[in-house]
Amino acid sequence: MNPSLNPKRTVAELKELRALTGDEHGAQRVAFTPMWTKTRAWLQKKLETLPVESHTDAAGNLWTTLRGESEKSLLIGGHMDSVPNGGWLDGCLNVLAGVEILRRIHSQYNRRPPITVRLVDWADEEGARFGKSLFGSSACSGNLDVNEARGLQDKHGISLPDALREIGVDFERVKDSSQELKNAAAYLELHIEQGPVLLDLGLPLGAVLGTFGVERHAITFHGQAAHSGSTPMNRRKDAFLAAAKMSFEIYKIAERSGNGVCTIGACTTKPGIVTSVVEECRITLDQRHLDPVALAKMLAEAKTAGEKFAREGSVKVSWERLWQIAPRPFNGELIALCEEAIRETCGQTHRLPSGPLHDAAEVAAAGIPTVMMFVQSLHGISHNKIEDTKEDHLELCVTAFDKLAGKTMQWIQSRQS
Amino acid sequence: MNPSLNPKRTVAELKELRALTGDEHGAQRVAFTPMWTKTRAWLQKKLETLPVESHTDAAGNLWTTLRGESEKSLLIGGHMDSVPNGGWLDGCLNVLAGVEILRRIHSQYNRRPPITVRLVDWADEEGARFGKSLFGSSACSGNLDVNEARGLQDKHGISLPDALREIGVDFERVKDSSQELKNAAAYLELHIEQGPVLLDLGLPLGAVLGTFGVERHAITFHGQAAHSGSTPMNRRKDAFLAAAKMSFEIYKIAERSGNGVCTIGACTTKPGIVTSVVEECRITLDQRHLDPVALAKMLAEAKTAGEKFAREGSVKVSWERLWQIAPRPFNGELIALCEEAIRETCGQTHRLPSGPLHDAAEVAAAGIPTVMMFVQSLHGISHNKIEDTKEDHLELCVTAFDKLAGKTMQWIQSRQS
Repeated sequence: MNPSLNPKRTVAELKELRALTGDEHGAQRVAFTPMWTKTRAWLQKKLETLPVESHTDAAGNLWTTLRGESEKSLLIGGHMDSVPNGGWLDGCLNVLAGVEILRRIHSQYNRRPPITVRLVDWADEEGARFGKSLFGSSACSGNLDVNEARGLQDKHGISLPDALREIGVDFERVKDSSQELKNAAAYLELHIEQGPVLLDLGLPLGAVLGTFGVERHAITFHGQAAHSGSTPMNRRKDAFLAAAKMSFEIYKIAERSGNGVCTIGACTTKPGIVTSVVEECRITLDQRHLDPVALAKMLAEAKTAGEKFAREGSVKVSWERLWQIAPRPFNGELIALCEEAIRETCGQTHRLPSGPLHDAAEVAAAGIPTVMMFVQSLHGISHNKIEDTKEDHLELCVTAFDKLAGKTMQWIQSRQS
Repeated sequence: MNPSLNPKRTVAELKELRALTGDEHGAQRVAFTPMWTKTRAWLQKKLETLPVESHTDAAGNLWTTLRGESEKSLLIGGHMDSVPNGGWLDGCLNVLAGVEILRRIHSQYNRRPPITVRLVDWADEEGARFGKSLFGSSACSGNLDVNEARGLQDKHGISLPDALREIGVDFERVKDSSQELKNAAAYLELHIEQGPVLLDLGLPLGAVLGTFGVERHAITFHGQAAHSGSTPMNRRKDAFLAAAKMSFEIYKIAERSGNGVCTIGACTTKPGIVTSVVEECRITLDQRHLDPVALAKMLAEAKTAGEKFAREGSVKVSWERLWQIAPRPFNGELIALCEEAIRETCGQTHRLPSGPLHDAAEVAAAGIPTVMMFVQSLHGISHNKIEDTKEDHLELCVTAFDKLAGKTMQWIQSRQS
């Protein structure tokens, strides 16, 4: 560990942030709220002893720049916003690890590091208020669907453009934030895993291969309502039966796919009364895979299965795409550096895909070499006040992430020459 | 056919009623509404040429009595009320067939028939407004749960006692209606089948063995919410998967039971979002059988299956009884008379249980010998404006039901002597 790096300070700052912005239900740093503004003011206070420049870009992302000899930049990114009743580590862990890394780099180099290092706090990663995640990073990457975003409203009917205006952001200019990526040479993001993989393996840290591509659909089976007492079983067109058959099938589809996952998250029934066979059953299907070919195959298999179950039950089936995103594989060389950093820190590493999306997916999509590091989550749970990670693992991840930052700076320099 | 019976007149009166009380969405004779009051006024007009006595009992049931030499009474029952957007035959068919039978009996006997014949229009069979069916007949049989019924409200917050007061019924006295059954010697009810059994067999009429007993439960599977992207398939505690497995299982349970039916009518999921494994899944299960032992076995098998699926999926399961009613087998001798009447009318008969409940179930529970006759339903559908029965089948059923009434009067006389 670099002698000037103090991971215990990061843990202490995370606790300080929790006390400042959480309550008995969890973290309350929802983007674009007064608590979020307060959080950012606190963050800037932490940075004020460093010779950095700070500004908020056209999309509301907060950039802190430690200027180096070269304009080529290493980006370290995270997000201070949380879901309502969120966990204490999701997002802010990497921003505060980034603060500690800036301190270490500043103390290590006299005056200026060889390349520029920039810490970004992305605006509204969670999408908790307007239902659309990765707002700031997708504006910056250019992937934001501006027409869709313009119409988003929170539960009080306030539009996203109006909420942005209140924090001084002009919605019509948010994509101007893309200029921030001009000199970006690499992007690093540290995150809690939010799943049980590292916990099951007993490993503190893992190198992330990329974020899953997602195919998200609503599947509706259309049967016939019929009286629960007077309709013999063999005369039924039971939409729930057909939908229910999808439930195992997706486990088989996921298993055949290798590392993919499939989830039926919601089921609604019409008329939905105890005395009638279900006429219409709608389920949501979320499918994720790191390999686009495997993802397409999972979707095709689900469609075939849906047709089969509909036919078996004399019902009809229709599909509606809710959302999709392509897999975002991370940079192979940076993945190798990430593994090196983890091995040097705690001996053993593991490669795993990221099921949840992260701002890193947007940065990778913008063509910037990207990698993420995961630290073990206790309970495999996040977006919940019980979200937690062991303190020694938190310290380890700051150390390993700092090593990765150092290696990546060398990697950027080596590519310049 | 008795020469003075005019089944075509019954069909004409049914059409007249449809025109008077229906609209483009179907029948609108919801109990305790102005349309229902209008319907009863129309019914009484139809009866005014007969030497009958009419009164409304303590529960709002309308009784029309053709007094006979003996006080022993043959009861013919039905209900003029409908669900909103209901069918044109459900309930009123047997009241109007009863009117025609009173006419025939009056014209056949000089002055007085040997026994008393009474037509009853039960109040609120459907329970459309207050969610509780068989109100009038269960008050009369004594089975009404008065404490539960006192608290019932319609969607506007009007209580059942208040609605009854408007039609002159004192809620606290509704069980006084039981005195109407004092001299009852038999009860007959004609109804559309509301199912596809007779349609499938190509038979116009059937003799009903009794009404199914019902076990109605909510089953809740308790799993764990988990991120749809970060949670490997083998780490999930998927409440929907466990609930979905019940879906086939109930088809197997029903098949093993012989003539029972099982229905999952509603499914709700929590948190019910596309990005989470289902934490809690609640389904409703309605099980019906004519044999109480078989019904208990179906329930026990469902409970065993639920435990098994919960165990397999590492989730928990809990059961809540929503409602239950015992099977109401009808009177064996009256079933035989009903079959005789059907065979004499159209050659072939079929015995079948009734899946839906009817007022006959309440009368049978009060110890009155009871039987029902079913006439074929087109589409096997009711509680819907497309509910229909062929006109020649309607005429046949009036003829056969009249024969059953004649045979039952003789049966009552034979038991008196």
